[in-house]
Amino acid sequence: MSALAVVLLSGGLDSATVLAIASDEGYACHALSVDYGQRHRAELAAAEEVARNLGAVEHRVMRLDLAAFGGSALTDPSIAVPVDGVKPDVIPVTYVPARNTIFLSLALALAEVIGAQDLFFGANAVDYSGYPDCRPEFMRAFETLANLGTKAGVEGHAIRLHTPIIAMTKAEIIRRGLALGVDFSHTVSCYQSDAAGRACGVCDACRLRRDGFAAAGVPDPTPYAA
Amino acid sequence: MSALAVVLLSGGLDSATVLAIASDEGYACHALSVDYGQRHRAELAAAEEVARNLGAVEHRVMRLDLAAFGGSALTDPSIAVPVDGVKPDVIPVTYVPARNTIFLSLALALAEVIGAQDLFFGANAVDYSGYPDCRPEFMRAFETLANLGTKAGVEGHAIRLHTPIIAMTKAEIIRRGLALGVDFSHTVSCYQSDAAGRACGVCDACRLRRDGFAAAGVPDPTPYAA
Repeated sequence: MSALAVVLLSGGLDSATVLAIASDEGYACHALSVDYGQRHRAELAAAEEVARNLGAVEHRVMRLDLAAFGGSALTDPSIAVPVDGVKPDVIPVTYVPARNTIFLSLALALAEVIGAQDLFFGANAVDYSGYPDCRPEFMRAFETLANLGTKAGVEGHAIRLHTPIIAMTKAEIIRRGLALGVDFSHTVSCYQSDAAGRACGVCDACRLRRDGFAAAGVPDPTPYAA
Repeated sequence: MSALAVVLLSGGLDSATVLAIASDEGYACHALSVDYGQRHRAELAAAEEVARNLGAVEHRVMRLDLAAFGGSALTDPSIAVPVDGVKPDVIPVTYVPARNTIFLSLALALAEVIGAQDLFFGANAVDYSGYPDCRPEFMRAFETLANLGTKAGVEGHAIRLHTPIIAMTKAEIIRRGLALGVDFSHTVSCYQSDAAGRACGVCDACRLRRDGFAAAGVPDPTPYAA
């Protein structure tokens, strides 16, 4: 029997590649998406399709109304998504407070319930957008926490947090995903995609993605709105 | 202006005392409860009343359907709440996988949004029920994580996790709460209280609470069902 893994799946390019990597490593993958009130809701439909295409055992969507807290351009319609380019060394308004801590906690809960010891998360610290909770030291701290705060950890069944693309460039992620059969035309990265999943082409996520396809030397399959 | 704090408030005896302590220390307290599909739903109404009585600035209830994951007697009606006494060194079926990791993550998110650096949490490692995520080493690991994974932490505004009752006995918590004006008749600890908040008297939470009042030498104001 394959070992079980919980894979956080946003519907974007990075997490789709991570799901493909986890499957390729032989894990039976339980994909988990979070409907947190994000404005780019098309990514949830994308996640469903990606999970099916990449052979996930199941795809769960957990609802959590982070929009009730606000504080981010991704959850508060009154805060505009920046379209004037990625700024180094600045945490942008698209940062959702404590989002990755929450997502990893939910993945951990599901892992405990189904008896999985492996979590896969598509954080990326290279071409990332300046989010504190995408850094390797954050991931190591979460793994420590997970082993202290769970029945599995206490009983010696170590929880492992895998972040296989954390040190890759976007181009490397794209090449790896393509090699593993990911169809990126079904993924949504744009922070303000329309209901059909078409990308704006100008937000940070779109810029990083488009530059990644260019650097990888492969055609960009992204459907753009304009 | 008072410093802001986020206080996790379950509606039980412990977290009510923690809210009173945080208020007494001068914090403007934002109380946060989580409606996670717990079978003892009366605790949410209790939390609302406790927050009002103890002068919280606001009381928020975040909905999160952990019952969809299951795996605990507190969220799965098909798993019975144990009523045969607390067993040392055993993690009971009332343990909700990764619950405190999730709750603290949500508190952290709210803290970031409102600009609070202080989190208060009523974990207790003495008279607790054998939960791994109630231990001091777990709390320290969460504080480390919180400072790595947030904008506040990265920018040098340290997040502090306060667990003021973690080393107290239940009797000490009760005495402290009474000294600070907590009306424990409005708190619900029972894992299977009825809709009116009346306690079963036999689950682990009821036993620890009743023994605490006895040890403190004060009358037990708990409304019992039988």
